[in-house]
Amino acid sequence: MGNLAWLNGNIYELDDAKIGVQDRGFLFGDGVYDVIKIYNSKPFRLSAHLDRLEKSSLAIKIDIPNSKKEIENITKELIEKSKCSDGFIYMQVTRGCTPRDHFFPTGVTPTLLIYILDIGFPPSKRDVKPTKCITLPDERWMNCHIKSTNLLPNVLAIQKAKEASGGEAILFRPDGVITEGTRSNIFAVIDNEVRTHPESNLILAGITRSIAIDIFRKSNTPCFEKAFNLEDLNKATEIWTTSTGSEITPVYSVDETMIGEAVPGPVCRYLIEEFWKIVETECYS
Amino acid sequence: MGNLAWLNGNIYELDDAKIGVQDRGFLFGDGVYDVIKIYNSKPFRLSAHLDRLEKSSLAIKIDIPNSKKEIENITKELIEKSKCSDGFIYMQVTRGCTPRDHFFPTGVTPTLLIYILDIGFPPSKRDVKPTKCITLPDERWMNCHIKSTNLLPNVLAIQKAKEASGGEAILFRPDGVITEGTRSNIFAVIDNEVRTHPESNLILAGITRSIAIDIFRKSNTPCFEKAFNLEDLNKATEIWTTSTGSEITPVYSVDETMIGEAVPGPVCRYLIEEFWKIVETECYS
Repeated sequence: MGNLAWLNGNIYELDDAKIGVQDRGFLFGDGVYDVIKIYNSKPFRLSAHLDRLEKSSLAIKIDIPNSKKEIENITKELIEKSKCSDGFIYMQVTRGCTPRDHFFPTGVTPTLLIYILDIGFPPSKRDVKPTKCITLPDERWMNCHIKSTNLLPNVLAIQKAKEASGGEAILFRPDGVITEGTRSNIFAVIDNEVRTHPESNLILAGITRSIAIDIFRKSNTPCFEKAFNLEDLNKATEIWTTSTGSEITPVYSVDETMIGEAVPGPVCRYLIEEFWKIVETECYS
Repeated sequence: MGNLAWLNGNIYELDDAKIGVQDRGFLFGDGVYDVIKIYNSKPFRLSAHLDRLEKSSLAIKIDIPNSKKEIENITKELIEKSKCSDGFIYMQVTRGCTPRDHFFPTGVTPTLLIYILDIGFPPSKRDVKPTKCITLPDERWMNCHIKSTNLLPNVLAIQKAKEASGGEAILFRPDGVITEGTRSNIFAVIDNEVRTHPESNLILAGITRSIAIDIFRKSNTPCFEKAFNLEDLNKATEIWTTSTGSEITPVYSVDETMIGEAVPGPVCRYLIEEFWKIVETECYS
């Protein structure tokens, strides 16, 4: 196992990596992050994740202190030293550690944290675990396209889902439009079309979401980045979530209403198969 | 000077106080905080701030690991040991340090941090510093009554104010209703009435806000917790902000439009005088 963390230039055992309490990541949530899955010791779609981390950082005007190339090298070093076959790389950049004041500080180097979380066993492609969801009001801020560490609303919502024995909360805005889950994007098959919320300030542009859209486009499956609302959801014959951590997860019920006839349904099943083919090609061959 | 921090039972020099990078306060902004002003080595309205910290914690279901009485004693010890006459006490409680997962962890003790920030000189009651403001869309989440550390929207907004040479951003919701500032409550004199947004999920119930309302009620000055919008703001003859850190700050312009004839205007001037009388009584006699 041996989870290692790289923090501002030094490598520590994860449990020994510490930051000053005045870090703006701790005091203000003034930071952004990204999470990459490791399959067979290879970081899957690392480049796309680093692009997104950079985009998030730019959006809140933090300069990541290391180049993309340097971060790639750090990532490889951590995977090697940790002897990690399957797990996650977590990356977070904050506006640095300095006496508390809301304004951006000057002359302060941002904090960069990169760590490995070994899950100890490889994913089983056949091990599809359908989940149940609840719907909840999306009470988050208006810039959900930024992958910031202001995750309290997500934490509170997914905890509510758990307390209702669910695995995810599907969030909707006051007009009833479904945006995304607390840590996943939401897809639904409605009137024989695959639909998911378009990229906007209301959702995070998920990497797995984008892979899914590509798979459907390549196979000429009707797939549209077109928002749907709570009412449309009632007509859905299939629903699934996409995320880096849980890949593609079919949803068997929403608010205690069963979805579709088989779980996963045929469209989701096709997506799962194609997704794992890509992982196979990129990480196992 | 010597700023000291109490962290989970131990006292450190503030710069030496460190938390694990897996603290949920750092990874998720999963925590709440409060800030108390110290005048003449006395924490002003400590009890009201501790009540609010408890309320915020309850709202996100974190059990503060120490009792109110214990926190009072820690506070006093820190002020004494720091020999702090004028400054701040900052308190933050998070859901603790544990491997990253959105769900509430079990069996994890919350993190409690309390530290002193000495400002080195006493406030001057006569030193009223009028400020200019800009208005900005309120893009925060829907639970602004919880004093959480998800402060990124506040940081981004006040930075915009600074870049426009302002000291505060006055936030408005899509319907034009003024909620509050990024780190203050907003008061305006409109049609000879003092108005401020009522307590709701859209604002933080400021301690100085509440002192101001009390002062007006006791003197029979017409004062209403009644929302006002951008249009009403144009009619305001006086505007000021209230906050623990900056007490009462008159606003001389909003979006480059000058406010009122004198700054501070007569109502604000009265408030400032009465406020400092209270501080005098509670902290200097």
